[in-house]
Amino acid sequence: MQNFSYDRLYKFTHDTLLKMGCSELHAQIGAEVLLSADLRGVDSHGVARLSGYVRLWEKGRINTSPSIKIVHETPSTAVVDGDGGLGLVVAPYAMNVAIEKASKAGTGWVSVKNSNHYGIAGYHAMMALDHDMIGISLTNASPLVSPTFSKERLLGTNPISVAIPAKEEPAFVADMATTTAANGKLEILQRKNQDAPWGWIQDKEGKPTTSANGVKEGGALLPLGGDREHGSHKGYALGAVVDIFSAVLSGANYGPWVPPFVAFLEPDPNPVGEGIGHFFGAMRVDAFRPAEEFKSHMDNWIKRFRSAKPTEGNEKVLIPGDPERELEAIRRVEGISLLEPVVKDLMALGEKFGVSL
Amino acid sequence: MQNFSYDRLYKFTHDTLLKMGCSELHAQIGAEVLLSADLRGVDSHGVARLSGYVRLWEKGRINTSPSIKIVHETPSTAVVDGDGGLGLVVAPYAMNVAIEKASKAGTGWVSVKNSNHYGIAGYHAMMALDHDMIGISLTNASPLVSPTFSKERLLGTNPISVAIPAKEEPAFVADMATTTAANGKLEILQRKNQDAPWGWIQDKEGKPTTSANGVKEGGALLPLGGDREHGSHKGYALGAVVDIFSAVLSGANYGPWVPPFVAFLEPDPNPVGEGIGHFFGAMRVDAFRPAEEFKSHMDNWIKRFRSAKPTEGNEKVLIPGDPERELEAIRRVEGISLLEPVVKDLMALGEKFGVSL
Repeated sequence: MQNFSYDRLYKFTHDTLLKMGCSELHAQIGAEVLLSADLRGVDSHGVARLSGYVRLWEKGRINTSPSIKIVHETPSTAVVDGDGGLGLVVAPYAMNVAIEKASKAGTGWVSVKNSNHYGIAGYHAMMALDHDMIGISLTNASPLVSPTFSKERLLGTNPISVAIPAKEEPAFVADMATTTAANGKLEILQRKNQDAPWGWIQDKEGKPTTSANGVKEGGALLPLGGDREHGSHKGYALGAVVDIFSAVLSGANYGPWVPPFVAFLEPDPNPVGEGIGHFFGAMRVDAFRPAEEFKSHMDNWIKRFRSAKPTEGNEKVLIPGDPERELEAIRRVEGISLLEPVVKDLMALGEKFGVSL
Repeated sequence: MQNFSYDRLYKFTHDTLLKMGCSELHAQIGAEVLLSADLRGVDSHGVARLSGYVRLWEKGRINTSPSIKIVHETPSTAVVDGDGGLGLVVAPYAMNVAIEKASKAGTGWVSVKNSNHYGIAGYHAMMALDHDMIGISLTNASPLVSPTFSKERLLGTNPISVAIPAKEEPAFVADMATTTAANGKLEILQRKNQDAPWGWIQDKEGKPTTSANGVKEGGALLPLGGDREHGSHKGYALGAVVDIFSAVLSGANYGPWVPPFVAFLEPDPNPVGEGIGHFFGAMRVDAFRPAEEFKSHMDNWIKRFRSAKPTEGNEKVLIPGDPERELEAIRRVEGISLLEPVVKDLMALGEKFGVSL
């Protein structure tokens, strides 16, 4: 492990994005969005992915000077065409459209096509908070997940994020894959050579397995719930809704047609849409009741849940977003620890582009 | 078990609602919504609950001649005050407001306060389908669920329903509690004197248990995921979002303050809002892309998932809504089987009101 300040990783990411042909503004936005994952402890979605984006760009699968635009709209909706751009910059553009729509119509809902991986879902949902709005952020992703009873992988880890403002209390921020466990958790077990719990994955025959390499070997992640008896059909339905809102509404690729994030796998030669899809929502709190009233009740909600009697061995009941916020406060001061393979990867990237880490 | 035709149960329910003081229109709507649960196989939410509604009405906790109205609105949002009415009639009113808003602004979002139990979530979401809209229906409910790490019950089974239209294929209809298992499934195990699987419930000390009576004895249902290792914090976050959208946005009671459905338990003497809360959404498909295009792609989505290679021992991959639709087709023809205790309960009700079953 090696420790880096946020500013150092920000500058490195920003400079690398510039070398890839991003505008100054896009390099700033892209670096901020990517690093928000490292700050919040979602290490699998942060700077460790930078070289993955570079490889997609080298293959011509990411357009670093996109002309992102609205291609269809009503007072409360829009479809945004990302023009093959970095999801890291397409997503904030689309979320801003949702916020703008909400400021006039009460709510705004934007489905996005022709985009790429957008970093952590939570960053985009949280953009709504400063406007006293509830933010929602969904995206589809490369197929790694098998629906209940399916041997085939048909869905991505398709996350859902919902950010809700409070008054004195920090905001409620849910940000979750619709699978039992995120792929990043498997990677940690693989590195430690440990088994995964039952209910996380199935092997390529569709049988439950505890092998942390099960997905790599042709198996699949399981929808939240794990198996039918524990409600995996619900996790499957949630992942499906994310897929449909993100891609069938916008005209992006859905289900097994979603282009793989890894550059060494080719996208389907017969796509059903353009790029990957996202979906964003913004709801003005005062489109329902006065914002101060709403936020006071959110404080009350949060305090009541946080002060619930905990079960044995657990210190307290958490509010969604608590662990990430606490980690961010620490990492902004103490820096971000990166694993040696990640550091090596970034060094190689720096050398290629003449950017110092 | 005794078998009843849909029409017979409809007439009985309709006539009982009239005797309770409902208008003819409300009796029709209430009966249709309540019985949609029996048709779709959610027996715990159908006619078996009728006497529960009666007991709440007898206690003055349901107003059968409510003045349901919009108390706040913007082009795409509204808050509806249910005036203490039956959720069975308040919910369709509010969903119609959402549909009306969507027809003008592209989408409509309605949060409801001062309501009661609204039957199955799916009925209301499906109201959007005939308008080529996506329908969303959420509600909070009496606290029976413990958040991850909590010994206390703070949430209801807070369901999420999403209905999405297709072209030739039947609609996609997800309708699920945000818990591992619905309370109705526990009741079935209790009757058979069988244990529940691990991951469904905890006892009153907050320890995992397989006793199907665990919830009755002061324990709690567990959020989807079951335990932290299997993602229960995600089920908890989903149930929390349902609670906040339904009640903190509208001004209804939330969390542990939600009034109990059973009449023998008194509501909290210090409520934080009015009645229970719901949340509805309607999104016009053509607010995003031409409806025919969208629905053709939905057909393609559904066909691809339904034809996925199944795992061993399973016949095929299901689309959310498949089992309920198939059951409804059968029950409309062959009738609805009711358990003896339910029949007895309805007979007693009929006697009290002079309504024949």
